[in-house]
Amino acid sequence: MTTPAIQRWAVQLEYDGRGLVGWQRQASGLSVQALLEEAAFRLAGGRPVPSITAGRTDSGVHALAQVAHLDFPADASFSSYSVREGLSYHLKPHAVVVLDAAPVSLDWSARFSATWRSYRYRILNRRTRPALAEGHVWHVKSPLDVHRMQQAANMLLGLHDFTSFRAVACQANSPVRTLDQLDITREGDEVVVFAKARSFLHHQVRNMVGTLKKVGTGAWEPERVAQALAARDRSAAGPTAPPDGLYLNGVGYEPDPFASPTPQNRT
Amino acid sequence: MTTPAIQRWAVQLEYDGRGLVGWQRQASGLSVQALLEEAAFRLAGGRPVPSITAGRTDSGVHALAQVAHLDFPADASFSSYSVREGLSYHLKPHAVVVLDAAPVSLDWSARFSATWRSYRYRILNRRTRPALAEGHVWHVKSPLDVHRMQQAANMLLGLHDFTSFRAVACQANSPVRTLDQLDITREGDEVVVFAKARSFLHHQVRNMVGTLKKVGTGAWEPERVAQALAARDRSAAGPTAPPDGLYLNGVGYEPDPFASPTPQNRT
Repeated sequence: MTTPAIQRWAVQLEYDGRGLVGWQRQASGLSVQALLEEAAFRLAGGRPVPSITAGRTDSGVHALAQVAHLDFPADASFSSYSVREGLSYHLKPHAVVVLDAAPVSLDWSARFSATWRSYRYRILNRRTRPALAEGHVWHVKSPLDVHRMQQAANMLLGLHDFTSFRAVACQANSPVRTLDQLDITREGDEVVVFAKARSFLHHQVRNMVGTLKKVGTGAWEPERVAQALAARDRSAAGPTAPPDGLYLNGVGYEPDPFASPTPQNRT
Repeated sequence: MTTPAIQRWAVQLEYDGRGLVGWQRQASGLSVQALLEEAAFRLAGGRPVPSITAGRTDSGVHALAQVAHLDFPADASFSSYSVREGLSYHLKPHAVVVLDAAPVSLDWSARFSATWRSYRYRILNRRTRPALAEGHVWHVKSPLDVHRMQQAANMLLGLHDFTSFRAVACQANSPVRTLDQLDITREGDEVVVFAKARSFLHHQVRNMVGTLKKVGTGAWEPERVAQALAARDRSAAGPTAPPDGLYLNGVGYEPDPFASPTPQNRT
C-alpha cells in the first residue's frame, strides 16, 4: 500500500467568533475547524482534508489573520487563487473567510513552524454599552488608566512561569513562556492591549487582560501583578476577560509562506 | 388652555443600522426614531416625547454620534446621567445607545442649530468578502487608487449645485450645498472617505462615494467627476454606494451642548 500523495496548503483566515464554538470541533455548535474542513472537503471533490491551526481560539474569540494548513490530495491541482476563492465560497454564509493561500512542504506546520503569535484585545471604555461593536469588545465602564496598566504590563515581559495566568485546564507541558510585547494604548474610547510571544498558554491573554483591568480601574496597584506572577497560582491573578474583545492578530513564520507585496492580489 | 411646560434635551446617539429601517418611522420595520421615542415615552412615565434629529439616516446607515432633541414634560426632573442611562436602558436590546445628554433651550434644534455634519464611509478593498465587518463596510474587490480618488474628490469641494449627486426623491428646496471636506485615506485594506459640510442632500455622500469608486478602479478619469457635477443631472454621476459603509460621524453646534472634557463622565 502506498500513502496517497498530499499537497499541503497554508491558509490565512479571518473570522467573527460570535456564534462559533471556537477553533476546535465540539460535540455541538459550529467550529471554525469543522467549517474549514467541510469547505475543503467540497473543494477536494468529496475527499477528507484534515487541518492543523496555529492557534486554537476559544468560543467567541475572533481572528484577523489566523493561519492553518490543509492536506489536500495532490492530484487536485490548485492555484493560490483557487484555494482562497474556493474555500471562501464554500464557507458561505458563515463569517469565516480565507484571505490568502500558499502551497507549503509537508515538513511545514501551521502550528509548529510558527515563530510568534500576536493578539489584540479591544476594551470599550465608556459608560454606555456598545451599539456598533457589540460582541467585538469588552465593555468596561470604569475609566481605565492606561499608564498604570502599562506599568503593570511591563512586569509580565520576558521569560516567566505564567502559571498564575494559565487556565486550570491548560494542557501545555510547561507553564514557562517568553512574553515579547504587551502594549496598552488608548484609541478614542477604546483601550487596546497588544500581546506578542512565540506561543501563549490557554487563556493567557484573557487572564492578563482581566488582571490589567484591575490595575487600570485602580482596584489593584501595579505591583500586585508582579506578586501575582510570582505566586504561580491562578487564584493570585485577576479574572479571565471575556472572549468578545480578543482577536488573534497574526502568526509569524520564517520564511513567511504568504510573503508577497500584495497578498490580496496573489493569483 | 396653557401649553404644557417642556424641557428639551439634546442627545447623542450611536447605532448599528443593520436591521433598522433608518431614522424615520416607516409603515413597518424598526426605526431609530420610533425606538428612541418609545424609550423616552417610558422614561417620561408614559407620556409622549417627540424627537427631531440632525440627520435622517437611511435604512442600513450607522451612526457614531448622531444628535437629536427630545421634548420631555418639564415636571420630569432629569439629570444628564438619568436621561442618558434611562434612555439607553429602555433602548435595550436594540443596537441603539445614548452616549450623552444635555438640557437645551426651546429655541435650540438638533436639526436647525447644526453648523456642520460629518460622515465616514468605509470601503473594504480586498478580494475576500468581509467576515468581521459584514454589514459595516462596502466590499469593493478591484484595487482602488486613493490618489486618483482624492484628485476627483477635490473637484467637488466648495459651493456647487449638487443635482447630479442628489437622490431623485430628495426633498430639499435647493440643490446647492457647500462641501467643506472630502478626504480619501487608506487604512490597511480599508479605504475611508470623510465628508464634512453644513448639510448634505439626500444620498449625497453615497452618490459621491459611488462615483469616486468609479475613478478609484480606473473605470473613470478623475475629470469625469467635474463633468458629472457640471451636468446637473443625476444620471451623469456614478451609482449610489450601499448604506453598509456609511456612518454619520458627528454633528457640530456653536456652542456645543455636549461640551465637557469627558462627556462620558458627565453626571
